[in-house]
Amino acid sequence: MGMKLWRNCRAATMQGAAPQPYGLVEDAALVVDGAMLHWVGAESDLPAALRAGCSEVHDAQGALVTPGLIDCHTHLVYGGDRAQEFELRLQGATYEEIARRGGGIASTVQATRRAGAQELAAQSAPRLRALLAEGVTTLEVKSGYGLALEHERKTLQVARDLGQVHRVDVRTTFLGAHALPPEFAGAPDAYVDEVLRMLPALNAEGLVDAVDAFCERIAFSTAQVERVFEAARQLGLPVKLHAEQLSDSGGAQLAARHGALSCDHLEWLSEAGAAAMATAGTVAVLLPGAFYFLRETRLPPVELLRRHGVGIAVSTDCNPGSSPCTSLLLMLNMACTLFRLTPEEALAGVTRHAARALGLSDRGVLAAGLRADFVLWDVQQPAQLAYAIGANPCIRTVFEGEPR
Amino acid sequence: MGMKLWRNCRAATMQGAAPQPYGLVEDAALVVDGAMLHWVGAESDLPAALRAGCSEVHDAQGALVTPGLIDCHTHLVYGGDRAQEFELRLQGATYEEIARRGGGIASTVQATRRAGAQELAAQSAPRLRALLAEGVTTLEVKSGYGLALEHERKTLQVARDLGQVHRVDVRTTFLGAHALPPEFAGAPDAYVDEVLRMLPALNAEGLVDAVDAFCERIAFSTAQVERVFEAARQLGLPVKLHAEQLSDSGGAQLAARHGALSCDHLEWLSEAGAAAMATAGTVAVLLPGAFYFLRETRLPPVELLRRHGVGIAVSTDCNPGSSPCTSLLLMLNMACTLFRLTPEEALAGVTRHAARALGLSDRGVLAAGLRADFVLWDVQQPAQLAYAIGANPCIRTVFEGEPR
Ligand SMILES: [Zn+2]
Ligand SMILES: [Zn+2]
Repeated sequence: MGMKLWRNCRAATMQGAAPQPYGLVEDAALVVDGAMLHWVGAESDLPAALRAGCSEVHDAQGALVTPGLIDCHTHLVYGGDRAQEFELRLQGATYEEIARRGGGIASTVQATRRAGAQELAAQSAPRLRALLAEGVTTLEVKSGYGLALEHERKTLQVARDLGQVHRVDVRTTFLGAHALPPEFAGAPDAYVDEVLRMLPALNAEGLVDAVDAFCERIAFSTAQVERVFEAARQLGLPVKLHAEQLSDSGGAQLAARHGALSCDHLEWLSEAGAAAMATAGTVAVLLPGAFYFLRETRLPPVELLRRHGVGIAVSTDCNPGSSPCTSLLLMLNMACTLFRLTPEEALAGVTRHAARALGLSDRGVLAAGLRADFVLWDVQQPAQLAYAIGANPCIRTVFEGEPR
Repeated sequence: MGMKLWRNCRAATMQGAAPQPYGLVEDAALVVDGAMLHWVGAESDLPAALRAGCSEVHDAQGALVTPGLIDCHTHLVYGGDRAQEFELRLQGATYEEIARRGGGIASTVQATRRAGAQELAAQSAPRLRALLAEGVTTLEVKSGYGLALEHERKTLQVARDLGQVHRVDVRTTFLGAHALPPEFAGAPDAYVDEVLRMLPALNAEGLVDAVDAFCERIAFSTAQVERVFEAARQLGLPVKLHAEQLSDSGGAQLAARHGALSCDHLEWLSEAGAAAMATAGTVAVLLPGAFYFLRETRLPPVELLRRHGVGIAVSTDCNPGSSPCTSLLLMLNMACTLFRLTPEEALAGVTRHAARALGLSDRGVLAAGLRADFVLWDVQQPAQLAYAIGANPCIRTVFEGEPR
C-alpha cells in the first residue's frame, strides 16, 4: 500500500522549540504511512521521490491542520445525570434538601451501578460523540463512580469498548479513590484497603493505564493517597492526582515524589508544589469547566506554573457533578478567558502537554514518526479555535491515518 | 393538503400560566396545519375527527418538544473577526497597542465595509448554521458595523437573504447608533444627523423591523438616543436599547418612556429603571456571553427584575468584540450558572420572552393558532438543556410546519 499525501494546508505542528508560534508551517504537506506520519514540512521541501511514493493525494484547500485533540482528564462514563440537582439548587434548595432527594455524587454512583454495561455505554456515547465532533482523537476516561470491583471494571471496560466502536484512543485510569461509597461510610481506611484489592485485579485484566486519586479534605488524605500510589508503583503503573482544587493539601508534592504524570485542578497550588512538579516533570492539568460551573473565584496560579516551567494541559473534566461539559474547544476559550492562558498555550494544552499528561510520547505534535492523528479546521489562524465560543470549525479528523 | 400529527412526545409548551413547570404536557400531540399549529395537548384529548384529518403521522419516540428557539439579540452579520486582538490581549498587549494594530470595533467596521454582500454572507453563514443546529427558528440581526447608508443596507439585506436561504425567520434591527464611524470622529451629533437620514431610507426599502441604539458613556448619550427614538416613532417602528451595561445612564427609563420592546444587558439597572420597564412591558434581555467574555463582575439584578415582574429574555449577543458566541444552548447554561436564572426561566428566555422582545405574539409558545416552529430534543427533562455544556441534543427542527 502506498503512502498518502495531505497537501495545501497550514500546519500548526505544536513543536515546542519551533521558531514560529504554534510551530506553524505555511504551505505544508503531511505524508502518512499507515497509521503514522512519515514526513511533515513545507511542501516545497518535500523530496520528489517521497511525493512519487504517495498513491493518494488529499487537497486540504488551505485548511489549518493541528494534531488530533487530546482530552486528558474525563469522567465520561457514568449513569444518569445531575440536571435535577442543578435545577433544585437554582430554585434555592439547600444542600441538605438535595442530598435528601438523592443528589450529589451518591446519585451518580447509584445510577452507574444500576446500569448494565450496554446501558452505560448508550448513556455515555452521546458525550463521546460530542467530543469527537471537535477533533478529539485521544481521550482519558477515569473510573470512580462504581467504587466496587464489578462496577469499576464495568466502567473501564465500557470506556475501552467505546473507544473501539468510535475510533478514538481511550486511555483508562483507575480512580477507585474518588469518593467513599455508602457501604464504607465513616471507614475511609477500610475503603482504601478495598481499593488496593481492586487495583491488581483490574490491572491483571489489562484495564488500567494509570492510577488516580482525589486528594482533598472532603475525599482522601495524603496518607491514604500514598498507600494507593505505593500499590501502583508495585504494579509499575503511572499515577496522577486530583490535587489542590479546594485547598492546599500538599498533594502536588506527594504526586511529584511519586513521579506523577499530572496533577489536576491546582487552584490552590503553592510555590513549593509547583517547584516539585517542575522537578518531577509532572504536568499541570487545568480544568476551567469545573472552575466555571462551580463558580470558583480562586484562579490556578498560571504565572507560577510558567515561571517554574511546568507544562500546562487543559481538559474538560467531563463529569456530571462539577463539569457536565463535552466541548474541548469551549475549554480553550475558558482557559483563555478565565485563566488568561494565551491561545497558543491553550492549544498546546490539548495537544502536546495533554499527551505528556497521559505519558504518551507518540502524539500531540505533528512530526515524522508520530501517530497520524490530525484535524483539518476551517479557520485562518489557530487563535480562532480559542476565540470562538460555540463554533465547531472541524472539517475532518484523521485517526491512525484514516479519515474518521 | 391534510394536516400533520406529531405524537408520542413530551411538550414543554412554555405557556406562562400553565399549572406544570415549563407548561409541560406528557404524552403530547401536536397537529400542524400548513405553517401553523392547529392543536396542542395530551394525545388522549385529541378529538378523533381531528386525528382522522391528519394525513401524515410522525412518531417523536418520546422526545421533548419545545418551541423553536429565538435568539433575540445578535450582531451576526459582520466582516472579519477579532481573534488576533483576543490573542494580542492575552499576550499582554495594551489597548493602545491593539488599537494601533487595527483592533477594536473600528477593525470590524473596516472589514464589514470592505466585504461585498456575497462575501459578508459567506463569512456570516457558519455562525448562522451553528445557531440553527441548536434549534433556532427566529433570529434577530442588528446592523451597526456599516455605519454608512450603503453598508448598513448591505448588512440588513444580507441578514434577510441568509434567512431565506437557511429557513429561519430573520428580524432585522437598524443599529446605526452603535458606534461613531471614523469619518465622524469627535462629531457624534453630526453622526446622529446621518443616522436620521439613513433610517427612513432603509425603512422605505423594507429593511427595518426595529430600531436600536447603544446608550453608554462610550457610545451615545440619552439625548442623542432620544432623537433616534423620536425618528423611529415617526415611522411607526418599535425601539430597543443597549442600556446600563457599563454604567447606570438612565437608559432603561428612556427606553420605557418610548415603549421599547426590550432593554438589553442591564448589569447596572436601577430599581427605578426596572419599575419603568415593568410598567411599559419592556423585556429585559440578558446577555451572559458578553458578561463572561468581558469578565464582568457586576451581575444584572435578576431578583429586581423578578420582583417587578419584568420579562427576562436570554440571547447570544453574537458579535466579534464582546461575545463571539454562536451557541444559544450555552447561553442557557451561562444564564443559570452566572446569573442564577432557573432552567425554566432560561428556557422561557429563549422562547416566550424572546418572542416578546421582538414584538412577536405568534411564536415562543406551543399553542393552537401560533407558528409551527418547534424542536425535538433527545432529553428527558427540559432542565438538561440548560445543565449540559457543549452538548447539542437537537434531533430535529420543524420550521413553518416542515422539518428543516
Ligand atoms: Zn476530575
Ligand atoms: Zn449587542
